[in-house]
Amino acid sequence: VTRLGPGPEFDRIRAIEARLGERASGLGDDCALLPLGTEYLALSTDMSLEGVHFRTEWLSLEEIGWRAAAGALSDLAAVGAETVGVLAALSTPAAAPPDATVALMEGIGRATAAAGGTVLGGDLARGAAVTVAVTVIGRVARPVRRAGAVPGDRLWLTGKLGGARAGLLALEAGHQPDPAAREAFAHPVPRIEAGKWLAAHGARAMIDVSDGLAGDAAHLAAASGVSLAIPLERIPLGAGVADAARRRGEDPAEFAARGGEDYELLAALPAGFTTALAGEFERALGIPLTLVGEVQAGAGVALSRGGTSVTLTGFDHFAC
Amino acid sequence: VTRLGPGPEFDRIRAIEARLGERASGLGDDCALLPLGTEYLALSTDMSLEGVHFRTEWLSLEEIGWRAAAGALSDLAAVGAETVGVLAALSTPAAAPPDATVALMEGIGRATAAAGGTVLGGDLARGAAVTVAVTVIGRVARPVRRAGAVPGDRLWLTGKLGGARAGLLALEAGHQPDPAAREAFAHPVPRIEAGKWLAAHGARAMIDVSDGLAGDAAHLAAASGVSLAIPLERIPLGAGVADAARRRGEDPAEFAARGGEDYELLAALPAGFTTALAGEFERALGIPLTLVGEVQAGAGVALSRGGTSVTLTGFDHFAC
Repeated sequence: VTRLGPGPEFDRIRAIEARLGERASGLGDDCALLPLGTEYLALSTDMSLEGVHFRTEWLSLEEIGWRAAAGALSDLAAVGAETVGVLAALSTPAAAPPDATVALMEGIGRATAAAGGTVLGGDLARGAAVTVAVTVIGRVARPVRRAGAVPGDRLWLTGKLGGARAGLLALEAGHQPDPAAREAFAHPVPRIEAGKWLAAHGARAMIDVSDGLAGDAAHLAAASGVSLAIPLERIPLGAGVADAARRRGEDPAEFAARGGEDYELLAALPAGFTTALAGEFERALGIPLTLVGEVQAGAGVALSRGGTSVTLTGFDHFAC
Repeated sequence: VTRLGPGPEFDRIRAIEARLGERASGLGDDCALLPLGTEYLALSTDMSLEGVHFRTEWLSLEEIGWRAAAGALSDLAAVGAETVGVLAALSTPAAAPPDATVALMEGIGRATAAAGGTVLGGDLARGAAVTVAVTVIGRVARPVRRAGAVPGDRLWLTGKLGGARAGLLALEAGHQPDPAAREAFAHPVPRIEAGKWLAAHGARAMIDVSDGLAGDAAHLAAASGVSLAIPLERIPLGAGVADAARRRGEDPAEFAARGGEDYELLAALPAGFTTALAGEFERALGIPLTLVGEVQAGAGVALSRGGTSVTLTGFDHFAC
């Protein structure tokens, strides 16, 4: 049985696993991993719904397609897989423009091509709202899972956090978002190449932080059977995040640690992985790789600021 | 580019293929087929929406899950593949019972286990309605495609037609359906074993008739570059179909040829495939295999009754 962190969505996954028994396997991981000769097929599925994950007033249909595909592709990045392709099932309302499915598929196709794959199939339906269900297919020789971090490892994070949440909150409030924050929300880049690089450089456990760093770190901790210590002041903040947090009276690092929809990777690497290697990563990938914490014996995630413990809750799709 | 029959859904697929160019491949087939060592991985995705494909007053959540998975698994049957597993993305309304996702997944798990596979992953979300997006994964050494039928082949159909449409129409009208017709709608059986048997016995082209025999035969004809002659009197009718058709003043065979949601297979087999072999099929699989037509030079589907040409339209999800 998959060891997941706390939360109502994960209680549901636990209940489904209990009911299905041998009829299910590997639920709750970033990807299903099927042995395939000398490597694995990596598979994951993700559904984006109008009114839940996006509104059509905020994003173009192409952006909605890109975002849905990028979110699913991020699960391949999280196991260090390369992209083979995607399948996409779409529903659009009768009142949508006639080329709505073409525009959605265009965004899905662009995100998939940017990640190195092709659109392999789909299904089109009429529905009351725009729905995009994307299934991604990848391949990986040595998958990195959520389990595998050991005390003494250190935690590294790709990119910067909080931008997507800053963009989303501005859109929800009817404000013009900071352009970089809007881009982080509308046009996230799945870290496929970064995931492969980290896997090749010894990552022992990995997860994407699309449900928020705090919540997703709890899954990695639960799966690995360790505690993760993350000082909030180490979290790199995306453009526009500090301002967005202050406008809400929130601490910027807490804002970033809570905020979901950042498709960045959190990896546990042995202590021998140095700052010099992180510099190599940055030169090769063009994005930062930041030391954000340590793996320790114990359980759960210990957030702190200035050495003082901090409690905050993650972002739970099912609760929103 | 995939050669499809006429219809607005298929015009959309053609427009998507034209826009995506090299970013897409094999859209519009029953399955995507990825070469994998000496065999192929077969992949397909299908979305079922409350209010479009079902209503929650008609079916239990388990039946909704079964039906959604069976419809997707039928695409594996259509290429002669065996089931590996499925991924399922679900949305349920906030007002749904707390174990709604467990009940949906239970139905998906049962249909998948009955087809020889396991549930490999999923995604859970809140939405305004029940949505089930199922992606199926299979494997097949020698896939049977829609292209491949040649003049002189004969057309064979598994099972009987019209039952699902009879059940659906009774439910829509608020009547108690014939129990067999209700079962055909609520609990369709994907013809995985039948598809493998037909592939092993020389099927040159195959398709499932879930969009209606008339419409799906047009896809097989277009992909193979042939004409299909189907005398309507040969179509085997499901239980309750003749009564349901007469109540609507429709010819029962036309009713059955038009009606979708029957997850039966239409296969083109060489003329050497005999009635004796069909008897073997029936003993091995426990369902009928009926000679329903011939493959001829030309294009399109020629339906007839008593030797006279008949025109009817298929069932198009996107038009409903």
